[in-house]
Amino acid sequence: MKLLEERIRKDGILAEGNVLKVDCFLNHLMDVALFHEMGMEFKRLFADKPINKILTIEASGIGIACIAAECFHVPVLFAKKSQSINLSGEVYATKVQSFTHKRVYDVVVSKKFIGPEDHVLIIDDFLANGCALQGLIQLVRDAGATVEGIGICIEKGFQEGGKLIRDTGIQLESLAIVERMDPTTGEIVFREQ
Amino acid sequence: MKLLEERIRKDGILAEGNVLKVDCFLNHLMDVALFHEMGMEFKRLFADKPINKILTIEASGIGIACIAAECFHVPVLFAKKSQSINLSGEVYATKVQSFTHKRVYDVVVSKKFIGPEDHVLIIDDFLANGCALQGLIQLVRDAGATVEGIGICIEKGFQEGGKLIRDTGIQLESLAIVERMDPTTGEIVFREQ
Repeated sequence: MKLLEERIRKDGILAEGNVLKVDCFLNHLMDVALFHEMGMEFKRLFADKPINKILTIEASGIGIACIAAECFHVPVLFAKKSQSINLSGEVYATKVQSFTHKRVYDVVVSKKFIGPEDHVLIIDDFLANGCALQGLIQLVRDAGATVEGIGICIEKGFQEGGKLIRDTGIQLESLAIVERMDPTTGEIVFREQ
Repeated sequence: MKLLEERIRKDGILAEGNVLKVDCFLNHLMDVALFHEMGMEFKRLFADKPINKILTIEASGIGIACIAAECFHVPVLFAKKSQSINLSGEVYATKVQSFTHKRVYDVVVSKKFIGPEDHVLIIDDFLANGCALQGLIQLVRDAGATVEGIGICIEKGFQEGGKLIRDTGIQLESLAIVERMDPTTGEIVFREQ
């Protein structure tokens, strides 16, 4: 998506350790006009899928998921992170390793809100190693629901998450895929799509 | 807002300890069509204010904040919770007591994204004792920005948060104010507005 690639080039900040900071429009300050354009693009990419629910994970996925959900006319379910949760029988739960925060989270959704009747589009802001996404896929499948696709704003194409998920046959669409980036020159190369 | 009051009566679940669960449309599964109606109502209520930014707090405030932000044509900044953050000089920080989670959080926003030029509408899904809101007001003032108003989806009118904030002179608008509720009969009484 050219609009997003241009915005990343203009406002993204590169740092050592393959860090791409986009907190000025995506995951701290949020440009909802851009989110609307991204939502419309997800709608175009998954137009043929019978999606009736969008699933995301707190916190930075919620904004783009909600605005995309307006384009799909479906509700959003967001998975909750917790470090110490009383796992009653009322939730589907999985564990997700966060490399940013160097922690393992329990990630849960209420059993009341997802079931075999659901055709789910998973949306998140970032994809790198794919741990969070693998957890969300697991939750959907535990519920007997169907993963119809995954929509990502920015994928780090040089990390393994995208390949691992595409290899399973799931339709994964990333609006911008960073193929490589160089913090010394500021160069960012996107994958042709 | 009648639409929201009717939805609370229809789908809200009362429990002992003044608990009102609305996780089936507001803060776990999120009905974005309802969020749009609420966003339009916030726009109507704050139509005369020169709002250029919406501030909320992760996680459950983000959805309604983003959809309201589309109505205002402004970006959203969401404050981040952390239990153990390296407080560099780059953030405004405050502490918020969570009664639900029985913890004190550091709540931070980047100094890059809020300053004296900002006229801020604070949005959140719930208001009870007002601790989170007091923290957000403090962050805005630390930044030298102006709190133009506060928009809340559901206020528990029998707790003190709403009164404390209105007494400071800030325009606080809650779309539904629960005056009292009875988990044994299921009765919910809303404040006339």
